[in-house]
Amino acid sequence: MFDFTSISFCNSTNARTGIFTTPHGLVKTPKFMPVGTLATVKGLSSTQLESTDATMILSNTFHLHLQPGERIIKESGGIHKFMNWHKPVLTDSGGYQVFSLGKLNKISDEGVSFKNPRDGSYLFLSPEKIMEIQMDIGADVSMAFDHCPPHTSTENDIEDSIKRTNLWLERCVKTHIRKDQALFGIVQGGKYPRLRELSAKFVSSFDLPGIAVGGVSVGESIDEIHNVISLVPKFLPSNKPRYLMGIGTLKEISIAVAQGFDLFDCVLPTRLGRHGTALFNNERWNLSNARFRDDFRPIDQSCTCETCKNYSRAYLHHLIRNNELLGLTLISLHNISHVIRFTNAISKAIQDNCFTIDFAPWETSSIAHHTW
Amino acid sequence: MFDFTSISFCNSTNARTGIFTTPHGLVKTPKFMPVGTLATVKGLSSTQLESTDATMILSNTFHLHLQPGERIIKESGGIHKFMNWHKPVLTDSGGYQVFSLGKLNKISDEGVSFKNPRDGSYLFLSPEKIMEIQMDIGADVSMAFDHCPPHTSTENDIEDSIKRTNLWLERCVKTHIRKDQALFGIVQGGKYPRLRELSAKFVSSFDLPGIAVGGVSVGESIDEIHNVISLVPKFLPSNKPRYLMGIGTLKEISIAVAQGFDLFDCVLPTRLGRHGTALFNNERWNLSNARFRDDFRPIDQSCTCETCKNYSRAYLHHLIRNNELLGLTLISLHNISHVIRFTNAISKAIQDNCFTIDFAPWETSSIAHHTW
Repeated sequence: MFDFTSISFCNSTNARTGIFTTPHGLVKTPKFMPVGTLATVKGLSSTQLESTDATMILSNTFHLHLQPGERIIKESGGIHKFMNWHKPVLTDSGGYQVFSLGKLNKISDEGVSFKNPRDGSYLFLSPEKIMEIQMDIGADVSMAFDHCPPHTSTENDIEDSIKRTNLWLERCVKTHIRKDQALFGIVQGGKYPRLRELSAKFVSSFDLPGIAVGGVSVGESIDEIHNVISLVPKFLPSNKPRYLMGIGTLKEISIAVAQGFDLFDCVLPTRLGRHGTALFNNERWNLSNARFRDDFRPIDQSCTCETCKNYSRAYLHHLIRNNELLGLTLISLHNISHVIRFTNAISKAIQDNCFTIDFAPWETSSIAHHTW
Repeated sequence: MFDFTSISFCNSTNARTGIFTTPHGLVKTPKFMPVGTLATVKGLSSTQLESTDATMILSNTFHLHLQPGERIIKESGGIHKFMNWHKPVLTDSGGYQVFSLGKLNKISDEGVSFKNPRDGSYLFLSPEKIMEIQMDIGADVSMAFDHCPPHTSTENDIEDSIKRTNLWLERCVKTHIRKDQALFGIVQGGKYPRLRELSAKFVSSFDLPGIAVGGVSVGESIDEIHNVISLVPKFLPSNKPRYLMGIGTLKEISIAVAQGFDLFDCVLPTRLGRHGTALFNNERWNLSNARFRDDFRPIDQSCTCETCKNYSRAYLHHLIRNNELLGLTLISLHNISHVIRFTNAISKAIQDNCFTIDFAPWETSSIAHHTW
């Protein structure tokens, strides 16, 4: 039911294009996946989301467990039907959220106990429980439950968390029995090359349909992020999709693709959209700025998204200035389209042998300008 | 450029169907017009709005004058292009808003001076100015500037306001020179039959392409609303569309159609939608109510709107409970579709000779059930 086939390879970097097959269709990689934490990509209907050329989208096990609860999603016929998204869905396990949001968490090899941030009630999550929840939610891809410690942890603490994550992965693999759902393992190890290698090799020792690299962009420096991106892929199998979690800035996507990563996700396009900030090339524009008041061009004349086809900067400025909901929706729609367009352009550039690690196809001097 | 043709007549009431021709297409009446005060029907893209079967929509001269200002709209190519709505648009003159929002207003025959509620700056609006603004905005239909006093005013005060409204109408007619824009007059007169008659006859003495009845549903009792609805149409020409301003409850629409009204507008469908309340038949459902938590049916199984085709009550409940923007959009979309569907059903029922003043086509016992 799951397959990853490499289609073409870059002649100067480790970039590749591929096709990841899921029960809800194909994902052509490299690809950016929009985030719909609570079974909704904030502000966008599924029709609008489809218009961005999104294929696989993300939701979050931890958040969905709290609200509406996996029973509701299961009884509604699974997450695809619940949220009316009939293309692939991936659920993050919520490991990151458990540790970052569950303030009073108590961690043991058994699992994590913490107080529900919504109502203070006592909750306990284990690898087994997280697998059961994800099987109930019914996404195409589920993620292993991982221990994601703060980036400021000592090497010893990170090593302990990797041992736990490894132990948990074994239990996830054992518990996960849903054949129409893939289980991806997650590589941890913080900023420590030795631990990243250890973790990558361990996760790779399972024949899982895909592998993710987590614990990146959790507060560490950009150089540390780049180091992990460069280091880890060489320890991962090449015949499986490689997913770099939580990365959505164009520069880092480009660097990561050059190292052989295939899948990306980030809340940034929608979060920026909700603050009235639009993506343009590699810039961020605050559309509430007075300079857009009588600028009747679309955000990006070269963009074919619904927002750019139909609405001007002046109109979006007007909406944002007046706190009109539609402004947030339209800018989010553009921003998602923009990042997906970027990964689509990378894909085309790899096929055309003009991908570079500093990929910036909007520049007329770029040898990949035709991909934009 | 403007024409109103009656198509069919009810055999038991004064209801009629008709076609109002505008530069941006036909409006089949009776028809409900969604409100987009600030050149946006709150939360809906123009594609979503089109899916509700909306034709003519409303915007507001007073609000658009304050933000973004008519210059921006004119320079962008007019309101249709600005908001990407290429069907008919009507701009209310803002008379009602000037008197209800402009707290410190000073009214004379010359016009109204008041403080901008946004920034406290001094503003002056006259019939001439309001016409110029509306010609700049460029809707298909502009409304005359009317003096709309509080419903608690004495008969004398209302009579004075009618005299002023009449004087202003003459000046509006004189100033309004845009041939591709219709000017509608507005009947005032509060709850006083004598004054309503006086006003209706005066407005009717101009050969305008349409006439509206304003100052209804501004705080007076439902019986007083019904009295005005019954009284005024007999004094209006039958070969012009009759627009009952600010009315959007199904019961009152039905009563008004039976008296010969053709056009309606109301903020209710979107305002309720933003509060998580959905329209179902003649009921209002608060979708955040726990009973919808695991109700996997659409809001209305008989409704073909995008929301009802694609999303369940349980999903909408989930969105509303979590303050997700999409919930507001989807419920507003359904609510607008619902009221438009109601006026479309009335239209079909008039043609099929089964319209009644207590029109409730969802009831299986209704002789007009097939129109729903």
